[in-house]
Amino acid sequence: MKLESSKENLINGISIVQKAVSSKSTLPVLEGILLEADEKLKLTGNDLEIGIECYVEADITEPGSIVLNSRIFGDIIRRMPDSEVYIELKENQTVIIDCENSHFEIKGLSAEGFPALPEIETQDSLSLSQKLVKEMIRQTIFAVSMDENRPILTGSLIECMDEFLTFVSIDGFRLALRKNRVENELSDLRVVVPGKTLNEISKILQPVDEEVKIYNGSSQIMFDLGNCRIVSRLLEGDYLNYGSIIPEEYQTRVKVNTRQLLSSIERASLIITVEERRYPVRFSMADDKMIITSSTDMGAVKEELQVEMEGKELEISFNPRYFADALKVIEEEVIDVYFTTNVGPCTIRPVEKGDFAYMILPVRR
Amino acid sequence: MKLESSKENLINGISIVQKAVSSKSTLPVLEGILLEADEKLKLTGNDLEIGIECYVEADITEPGSIVLNSRIFGDIIRRMPDSEVYIELKENQTVIIDCENSHFEIKGLSAEGFPALPEIETQDSLSLSQKLVKEMIRQTIFAVSMDENRPILTGSLIECMDEFLTFVSIDGFRLALRKNRVENELSDLRVVVPGKTLNEISKILQPVDEEVKIYNGSSQIMFDLGNCRIVSRLLEGDYLNYGSIIPEEYQTRVKVNTRQLLSSIERASLIITVEERRYPVRFSMADDKMIITSSTDMGAVKEELQVEMEGKELEISFNPRYFADALKVIEEEVIDVYFTTNVGPCTIRPVEKGDFAYMILPVRR
Repeated sequence: MKLESSKENLINGISIVQKAVSSKSTLPVLEGILLEADEKLKLTGNDLEIGIECYVEADITEPGSIVLNSRIFGDIIRRMPDSEVYIELKENQTVIIDCENSHFEIKGLSAEGFPALPEIETQDSLSLSQKLVKEMIRQTIFAVSMDENRPILTGSLIECMDEFLTFVSIDGFRLALRKNRVENELSDLRVVVPGKTLNEISKILQPVDEEVKIYNGSSQIMFDLGNCRIVSRLLEGDYLNYGSIIPEEYQTRVKVNTRQLLSSIERASLIITVEERRYPVRFSMADDKMIITSSTDMGAVKEELQVEMEGKELEISFNPRYFADALKVIEEEVIDVYFTTNVGPCTIRPVEKGDFAYMILPVRR
Repeated sequence: MKLESSKENLINGISIVQKAVSSKSTLPVLEGILLEADEKLKLTGNDLEIGIECYVEADITEPGSIVLNSRIFGDIIRRMPDSEVYIELKENQTVIIDCENSHFEIKGLSAEGFPALPEIETQDSLSLSQKLVKEMIRQTIFAVSMDENRPILTGSLIECMDEFLTFVSIDGFRLALRKNRVENELSDLRVVVPGKTLNEISKILQPVDEEVKIYNGSSQIMFDLGNCRIVSRLLEGDYLNYGSIIPEEYQTRVKVNTRQLLSSIERASLIITVEERRYPVRFSMADDKMIITSSTDMGAVKEELQVEMEGKELEISFNPRYFADALKVIEEEVIDVYFTTNVGPCTIRPVEKGDFAYMILPVRR
């Protein structure tokens, strides 16, 4: 293997595939990046949960392949002068990396031991803008469960049917749903993608109109960005029937400014310190006013919000973090909050377009 | 106590005095900020190592004083709308904090239990620009010792004599010295200020021409920024006679570009991982070339620098971090490095102005 590439191109590729590299593994090869030089230079990272391959422009004079420790390889290239980098594989899996007056000799690992990315059939695909997918992940991932006892809930459901693409996360106390009308429909898409890998994918996706193609493998999903492909393992099992969880009836509806509600909830949370996290905040709705209160050993807070209200007066308590997490990702200036009873779920919905729903269970006192 | 002040003014004051507040103390009052409203509003933080008081513009309608938990008070004010904040002390040390539609009632602590800042005589003082003092701290503080067995070395020596102000840090393996000609001389200033408090002071000082006055108390030093005063405890004991440590003779002198040397040393350090930190980097000087090499289980690095050299050829090994720490704070584009022998100290000096010296001991192999 002999090639030359610019520091900048190498860094871009390394930064992307590093998101799929184990920082600590019992298998040293999983802490590495696979370099394959043929007609193009391909970099691959694969921690067996998520695999990423990325093509990097390079001038290849001799093909070959090798695995280099991801941290070392990345650090070396990042620290090099902004110039052309020469990479050559010598005997005994030693790799030369030269740039201007810097000369590195690094021990590599055989490419044979590196786990290949699973092959995904690339017939049916769903084409979306990167920015939309990035946004849909951001607006639902926070409600993914951290509880390993119900593994299926540690991922987000991605479903495509009836011309709608839907992302759903549920952690047992709350639900986050974001949907979007799509033109081309991938037949029968209903998969659960691990939250951890969705998080990495959302970092790679840019807030741009360029498209990402989604392919559905039998036990994998692939996101194809053109010169970069991300393959994620899927979670096995039946996901909850989210449609039946979200209440359709309500007793009280409140139209409120999103940022004002978030600020008030955050202030009411200030006196709930970490050790006392179980303290809830209380919402009281009456006379077009929403009063948010909290009270702990440290003191008391009272926040008053002007709202548009419909239905019964209500007093109800919530874990403030669940409300704040949802409000932080909502772009709409004004939202509707639908309450059932003071022990039943409440749902945040947009006032106009029906493209999201956040459901939160109250705290029973 | 009844007063009104803007969120912005309160935040500025709180952010400064918080640097002197214990985050965790067995005495709750040390985790607090003292508010004293008389003609002006004065905020004070004091962890007994460093004390800071700061005046905040406020409209005071009733004088009084109270101690509020620093974290809670800061968080509340930071989260308030950008508006006027009303603060009132009620019965039982309860404090009302109101802003627009937000209403807080927070339990305070009696001001009587708060430790007063020590009185410092304000006769002789040394006036310097904030930016100079900030710079002098930054350029010497990294060489302060972390070893509590020699407490005096955990601070920096601040000395003013012969029209020169000098900051010196020594940790047993290296020395950092920065001096500056000053016009007015504080008689007999020779004090050792704890590194921890210098670090906080440098954060409060701004890179501006506005002056800071330094006052010398018997066991304290005070930095007066006008509406903010910082009092630091001094370390007791005799500081090393740094003048006798820095070698005046040399066998090899190398004139080298500061950034290039730093980059080369940083790259040569990349293969020295945390667990293998004891590996040194090796400098070889001959024929107007400086070759920097390192070698570990991971591989080998060789960096070649073009230099201007005078004196004998030399091979010598260093802890790369000691060199990098010094090079990072040097503004000069080109420096002179003076070597004695391969087991003796080396000294970095400016090529022209004589206002700094960094001495580093080599690693004996």
